[in-house]
Amino acid sequence: MPILTLAEAQTLVTAALVRADTGEPNARAVARALVAAEADGLKGHGLSRVPSYAAQARAGKVDGHAVPTLARPKPALLLADAAHGFAYPAIDAVVAALPEIARSEGVAVAAVRRSHHCGAAGHPVERLGEAGLVALLFANTPSAIAPQGGRRAVFGTNPIAFACPLPGRPPIVVDLALSVVARGNIIAAKQRGEPIPEGWALDAEGRPTTDPAEALKGTMVPLGGAKGTALALMVELLAAGLTGATYAADASSFMDAEGGPPGTGQLILALDPVAIGGPGALDHFATLAGQIEDQDGARLPGARRLESRARAARDGLPVADALLAEIARA
Amino acid sequence: MPILTLAEAQTLVTAALVRADTGEPNARAVARALVAAEADGLKGHGLSRVPSYAAQARAGKVDGHAVPTLARPKPALLLADAAHGFAYPAIDAVVAALPEIARSEGVAVAAVRRSHHCGAAGHPVERLGEAGLVALLFANTPSAIAPQGGRRAVFGTNPIAFACPLPGRPPIVVDLALSVVARGNIIAAKQRGEPIPEGWALDAEGRPTTDPAEALKGTMVPLGGAKGTALALMVELLAAGLTGATYAADASSFMDAEGGPPGTGQLILALDPVAIGGPGALDHFATLAGQIEDQDGARLPGARRLESRARAARDGLPVADALLAEIARA
Repeated sequence: MPILTLAEAQTLVTAALVRADTGEPNARAVARALVAAEADGLKGHGLSRVPSYAAQARAGKVDGHAVPTLARPKPALLLADAAHGFAYPAIDAVVAALPEIARSEGVAVAAVRRSHHCGAAGHPVERLGEAGLVALLFANTPSAIAPQGGRRAVFGTNPIAFACPLPGRPPIVVDLALSVVARGNIIAAKQRGEPIPEGWALDAEGRPTTDPAEALKGTMVPLGGAKGTALALMVELLAAGLTGATYAADASSFMDAEGGPPGTGQLILALDPVAIGGPGALDHFATLAGQIEDQDGARLPGARRLESRARAARDGLPVADALLAEIARA
Repeated sequence: MPILTLAEAQTLVTAALVRADTGEPNARAVARALVAAEADGLKGHGLSRVPSYAAQARAGKVDGHAVPTLARPKPALLLADAAHGFAYPAIDAVVAALPEIARSEGVAVAAVRRSHHCGAAGHPVERLGEAGLVALLFANTPSAIAPQGGRRAVFGTNPIAFACPLPGRPPIVVDLALSVVARGNIIAAKQRGEPIPEGWALDAEGRPTTDPAEALKGTMVPLGGAKGTALALMVELLAAGLTGATYAADASSFMDAEGGPPGTGQLILALDPVAIGGPGALDHFATLAGQIEDQDGARLPGARRLESRARAARDGLPVADALLAEIARA
């Protein structure tokens, strides 16, 4: 399998997006996000997205030349209009602006609307964690999960991401979607002609299914049953309700060039731990990390992601020939 | 079974706490919270708590005369010191103060430390929802859940609560603990001499168990496996890490009079939907509620709770003789 350095991957993805009618600064921002996800081993949010992103930019489903705008109608509130461009430039803008606001106000919130796929949800909060802030991100996605008692999906897989700084080491990062598995696993099983395990998905009648084709016509199972469904509702209301974004049921796919822009939303919160917990705040976080790492076999989330990142920086990114060819054609 | 009106229950609980060396305003606040939980059918946070609360006040584990103090070191930040009293007076104070701050700043956060059991976590956010705000609450509790790969509990069952206002009807309220079931279910099974279902708890070696006695020496299973464990870590860091409160592993029980004060924490966020989403914000929330309620059999969370509340207001609260006698003796 060909191996690309991170810089080569960045150049390749940027060029593919620029060819697909995307402004160069936006293309660079998108490429940075996709290459970072690929480096972290999060392939579902990595280079595999380039062909469909390029097709969406070319079709005008995503406006590759959109310039996100920020407004600050209240001291602790940042409103971002992603203007139906890619999500990453808008998220980069709010992540750059949030630390100063959080430090002066104690907490700050950024609401991003007319947005798109936010990719690896852990990355924006991780950058806020590296800036010494505790951060939360809620995002909605096209419809995947049915409400309690219902059969039609009205919530996305709706990731929650969280970061917390630690003294002298990378922040703790939590990043999880609220479905048991990503839909990509079901698409892959269908392509292989294999059944899926029970507990991943429901068919269009709301019945458990192991047939990936039936599953793709139905809905995704949320983690933890009714409690997971309630969390999906919560994230839908935070990420799309509060931001004025498009709800899951009305959002077009992130994966193809069909239809209008998805227009989904993200809500990002940043809290200043020193203002809240005092000068010892980061040491107090380290105490909990210690209570975990003192146990044989126990670990903080994200360890595998950081190992993958270090390996990618050292050894480069293996990219399948077929995907490389697709990106070159995109 | 004897039936008490809500007013009678309020008087009875207040009197029991006052006898147990609790100041009358604090006793009234605690009684309001416990009676409201009982009325909602949340018996684990209701009148069953009176005997242990009274014992804790009498022993000085909870300071029944504590006066919570508030500070506002940053414009959007409220720090509450519950001063090792009951949680409810401190939570009442921040819930009263948050709406004005959230409306002027866009978002506001309250960090409560040196606190105690916060009871029905949905109630404080529901009051903020009734004030037209979107609200989140994170609380930590004494140790229950082990970290990923570990065997010793370092996280509580750590509830997440959320409320979102709707136009012309009660807010949507989500309130869930991150264990599959509450520990009370295991205590009850042990008292009945019955096994517990697999998937509720692990023994002290981290192995699945159906023996309630072994389960009580071990840890609670989080909802959704590794993802639920990650959420429990997130809540521990928000509710205790950020607030400077005592972590689960170091917190004494909420259920008995042994040891020093638990000193746990709560973090409450309030967001102004009109500042964020504009004047149509509540109607946008109603759109999602409609997408759910349009489906046969689907419903918003909290419906059962509201039915129970209406029934209690109309018909009173049935309280078992044994519990009434315990409260009278407390």
